[in-house]
Amino acid sequence: MDTENRTETLEAQVKAFFDSAPPLHNSHEITQKLNQFIQRNSSSSENGEARRIVCVTSGGTTAPLEQRCVRYVDNFSSGHRGATSTEYFLKAGYAVIFLYRRGSFQPFCRSLPEDPLLECFEPTNDLNIQVRKDYSKAVKSAIVDHHIAVAGGHLLKLPFSTIFEYLQMLQIIGTSTRCIGPRAMFYLAAAVSDYYVPWKDMVEHKIQSGSHLLDVKLVQVPKMLSVLRKDWAPLAFCVSFKVLMVFVRH
Amino acid sequence: MDTENRTETLEAQVKAFFDSAPPLHNSHEITQKLNQFIQRNSSSSENGEARRIVCVTSGGTTAPLEQRCVRYVDNFSSGHRGATSTEYFLKAGYAVIFLYRRGSFQPFCRSLPEDPLLECFEPTNDLNIQVRKDYSKAVKSAIVDHHIAVAGGHLLKLPFSTIFEYLQMLQIIGTSTRCIGPRAMFYLAAAVSDYYVPWKDMVEHKIQSGSHLLDVKLVQVPKMLSVLRKDWAPLAFCVSFKVLMVFVRH
Repeated sequence: MDTENRTETLEAQVKAFFDSAPPLHNSHEITQKLNQFIQRNSSSSENGEARRIVCVTSGGTTAPLEQRCVRYVDNFSSGHRGATSTEYFLKAGYAVIFLYRRGSFQPFCRSLPEDPLLECFEPTNDLNIQVRKDYSKAVKSAIVDHHIAVAGGHLLKLPFSTIFEYLQMLQIIGTSTRCIGPRAMFYLAAAVSDYYVPWKDMVEHKIQSGSHLLDVKLVQVPKMLSVLRKDWAPLAFCVSFKVLMVFVRH
Repeated sequence: MDTENRTETLEAQVKAFFDSAPPLHNSHEITQKLNQFIQRNSSSSENGEARRIVCVTSGGTTAPLEQRCVRYVDNFSSGHRGATSTEYFLKAGYAVIFLYRRGSFQPFCRSLPEDPLLECFEPTNDLNIQVRKDYSKAVKSAIVDHHIAVAGGHLLKLPFSTIFEYLQMLQIIGTSTRCIGPRAMFYLAAAVSDYYVPWKDMVEHKIQSGSHLLDVKLVQVPKMLSVLRKDWAPLAFCVSFKVLMVFVRH
């Protein structure tokens, strides 16, 4: 296939994906938040330069198998890399748009257990509550550091679940940051679905479980990285990751 | 198909499922915890009778698509019904084995937001932390009531993720509670996968994303409810739920 044909195919795939996606119900609100965030972080800071703004994506996207979604294909990712990197970007003076999967790791919370409220706190004798001694430093710094970043206007958190939400939000972030050119960066640590079921091909309600076999046909998600670089935010710096497979024999 | 044939088919399906399942790595530890829990709750309580013991299942199970699991089919369920019912069973004097999906709703935590640590607490002026006023009652009662149930020996929490873990754990709980006969109850509120990929049919590593289409073939999970009632815990009382589909036109 020559380059021109490949471009046409990708364009057709991208169009098919977005045409098929259920529209974001809060795209207007997200755009507003982004514009405010970019504006706030574009005035000169202490060193006389405007802050760099990085969009960190984190956690896995889901590909629904039904429109009123009961079943979906999920991509496992704890979001550890994205959450950690966000902390380091903030320390390095960046403003961070944290585009994360609901329920995945949050910045400044990496050293906490799975269910921090029930595991890090205990009742006192007078039926009040206190932090368990082992966790007191981790809990305090999680709450304080997170609050400083959000209240200071340097951390904007935007949650997603499905591949449809994720790519539509990435598109909005891309086009919103275009105005700041090379001051924008994309650090794509999310585990993005490779395959999806186009919305119109999906059954509306739960797939009935009558037959012995279920055959699910999925279509490849178009490679959006090139669209981000070429169309949405052509001057931004992009970092992406390949899944690292560790081959260990047990 | 006559009844005998159907029974044979179910038995063959059940055998195929368990033969195909990766063995639980902590089955010994779970059995020990269960035996201690059953013993502790089988001595007479205040009213002269031993406590009833209910196993509440909660949240959705996953069906992995790869052995070193990156992708899996998930069943959406918040675990709200299971968590709520657990609270009511405890109030009614039952001991509860709470078999729950990691990350799903926990008993006594229903009225808290998605990320309670970051949303319910705030820093004080001296960089210490405190509960936000709006949440002070909910946070306190979550921690205190949960602690009382666990420390009092009336709530045993066992987490699962995959359909393989869930059904093996349900089998252990079933056979462990057999000795208490009709004093055991099963309240099956989990959203259990209808289909799975047999472990041996799975690719070992991540499915490669080369081709434009992905065709996933899944096999029906055998109906284990009848096995639970007939073989694992024949005298226990069982409650199960059908998924409730709400048909609303937008």
